[in-house]
Amino acid sequence: MAPTLSTLDTPAALVDVVQMNHNIERMQQRMNQLGVRLRPHVKTSKCLPVIDAQIAAGAVGITVSTLKEAEHCFAHGILDVLYAVAITPGKLPQALTLRRRGCRLALITDSVQGAQAIADFGTRHDERFDVWIEIDCDGHRSGLKVEDVALLEVAQVLNTGGMNLRGVMTHAGSSYDLSCTDALRALAEQERAVCVAAAQRIRHAGLKCPEVSIGSTPTALSAVNLEGVTEVRAGVYVFFDLVMHNVGVCSAQELALSVLTTVIGHQVEKGWVIVDAGWMAMSRDRGTHKQQRDFGYGQVCALNGDWLEGAQLSGANQEHGIVTFEHAPALPIVSQFPIGTRLRILPNHACATGAQFEQYHAFDTDASGAVHAWSRLNGW
Amino acid sequence: MAPTLSTLDTPAALVDVVQMNHNIERMQQRMNQLGVRLRPHVKTSKCLPVIDAQIAAGAVGITVSTLKEAEHCFAHGILDVLYAVAITPGKLPQALTLRRRGCRLALITDSVQGAQAIADFGTRHDERFDVWIEIDCDGHRSGLKVEDVALLEVAQVLNTGGMNLRGVMTHAGSSYDLSCTDALRALAEQERAVCVAAAQRIRHAGLKCPEVSIGSTPTALSAVNLEGVTEVRAGVYVFFDLVMHNVGVCSAQELALSVLTTVIGHQVEKGWVIVDAGWMAMSRDRGTHKQQRDFGYGQVCALNGDWLEGAQLSGANQEHGIVTFEHAPALPIVSQFPIGTRLRILPNHACATGAQFEQYHAFDTDASGAVHAWSRLNGW
Repeated sequence: MAPTLSTLDTPAALVDVVQMNHNIERMQQRMNQLGVRLRPHVKTSKCLPVIDAQIAAGAVGITVSTLKEAEHCFAHGILDVLYAVAITPGKLPQALTLRRRGCRLALITDSVQGAQAIADFGTRHDERFDVWIEIDCDGHRSGLKVEDVALLEVAQVLNTGGMNLRGVMTHAGSSYDLSCTDALRALAEQERAVCVAAAQRIRHAGLKCPEVSIGSTPTALSAVNLEGVTEVRAGVYVFFDLVMHNVGVCSAQELALSVLTTVIGHQVEKGWVIVDAGWMAMSRDRGTHKQQRDFGYGQVCALNGDWLEGAQLSGANQEHGIVTFEHAPALPIVSQFPIGTRLRILPNHACATGAQFEQYHAFDTDASGAVHAWSRLNGW
Repeated sequence: MAPTLSTLDTPAALVDVVQMNHNIERMQQRMNQLGVRLRPHVKTSKCLPVIDAQIAAGAVGITVSTLKEAEHCFAHGILDVLYAVAITPGKLPQALTLRRRGCRLALITDSVQGAQAIADFGTRHDERFDVWIEIDCDGHRSGLKVEDVALLEVAQVLNTGGMNLRGVMTHAGSSYDLSCTDALRALAEQERAVCVAAAQRIRHAGLKCPEVSIGSTPTALSAVNLEGVTEVRAGVYVFFDLVMHNVGVCSAQELALSVLTTVIGHQVEKGWVIVDAGWMAMSRDRGTHKQQRDFGYGQVCALNGDWLEGAQLSGANQEHGIVTFEHAPALPIVSQFPIGTRLRILPNHACATGAQFEQYHAFDTDASGAVHAWSRLNGW
């Protein structure tokens, strides 16, 4: 007999399938309207049923954060894969193996040294790697600036070395720090304009640069115009989370991932309810800490998903979570939340919380209440 | 051919076996001198070769944070197991199964409701559970206060219900917030005195309470006298970490867990070296943030383990880490740390960082440089 939300062992990572499908549809439709392809980043879910739903809705391929994700998805039949972390020389043999088996794996680089290593290795093994050049559009992490002299050098090294320069790509990761529509729109435009300019610079130098790939969930949901862009990468939109809610790109109802937990004790004098979801279940991610509303380690909800306003997971040890209440509950906490009570906790960051689990438990609110285990990939 | 530190795929969680064995020996000798048994908490490593080394050194049994750990260790032949999270009624069938198979699994509770659930379930299934009562010695989380009227009620419920009240146990988790020897000694004495007093109160009420179990790594390494205590639980000492180093209970050399990473890029203007260890490898734990020295997401070391003073993992995205330098390195960063350079990063919190990996890679500095995969348990 399949477990239900009332019988499942806790802690467990729950996926609300109705909401997830809504989120997938929302992003795909937006990309369709903007006239660009969607290549979802599967680092959020690392889960084949989720990825299948994204592809069924219209995604053209996937973005991965590890070669293990690429192998896993390729074994499942997904051929078009972008590995969106600058490749190190030591990982090239693994990439080659994937390509030799038929995976259309594309690599990225943001340095002459990296490009040279790809070209040398490709030449030595008679493999014409597909390579994207990573562009820095907002200073938050990796990538070459549009005006960097190295940009054309990297393009030349790849071209001369016989590699296939597919295009340029960027990720406006600083969008996670924003929370106002105008600022999000401006950053989305900056992400687009910078990446398109990088492609133009390469093209003006006489090299082919067919593709322009951008994306983060906040900018993808804020962009007004994506002229010159060929595809968008976004990941966390599939589940959304409290950080995205604070950024302002999803409603409270759109959060599709939560952690099911059980009350294991109380500290009555302090008004604490102790639950069996600590940081091992929630992750240590405190992404809402610097945002407009700090949710601690998560927003506490009733088993049906209703927010318990002002109730949050304020503290977390490895397997203990401490739930506190901004306003005293209607009944004494021992009566209102007796030992064995089941609650759900919405996470700050879906990518980090999901990674604490080996499987999700998916439920469909229209069905029998049964949950189904969906395994997820972890590690490298 | 076994991989070495120079060929292993990155990121990887490295265990320095020589240092780990030193740490195990250090704690075991201390407990032997203080005349108490050691029951290590295996939630830190969740790894059988590590646990075997602890038992070989003299540990009397283990402490676990999940029933999955109990099952895994029992299947390996470890019989004496304390599950140190208050049991919820829903987990009692799983506990019963373990006991029926021969595991001497002991449970804990800190409420009348919890004790009643154990007694009722035990009576119904003709099982005399071994139960410890959890005591709150420092207000940091769960447990009953010594003076709480519920303490004797819980003991009575267990006794009347035919359960085996094994003793009282506490964990001075607030020790992680300290950093001065006198304060640590005082808290260690408080932990001892409170837990012994709880046992005495139960004994004075005419009930048996043979055991007194205390422990956290900082208090275990600070206690001067453990009179009345029968056993100590401690976990993180097996690897130690930067938080423990800040607390002051281990030297820099004693840190036995590190994350092997590879340089994947640079942002020269900012002085950043980008590595392939982000928060997915390090965890989001920022345990040193409020301590005397904030190590960001970790202290950066050369491949041989030497600290690169002032170099830390300042930023972490999912698979990208940003290394910054307090003082400019001797050479330009691109020359000193070219793409492909291997580094090691010491984590804030060994329990959290280990949990990001499905295996450790163990190396012995006296041997050939080969590393050996040690699988670890994750999930519930």
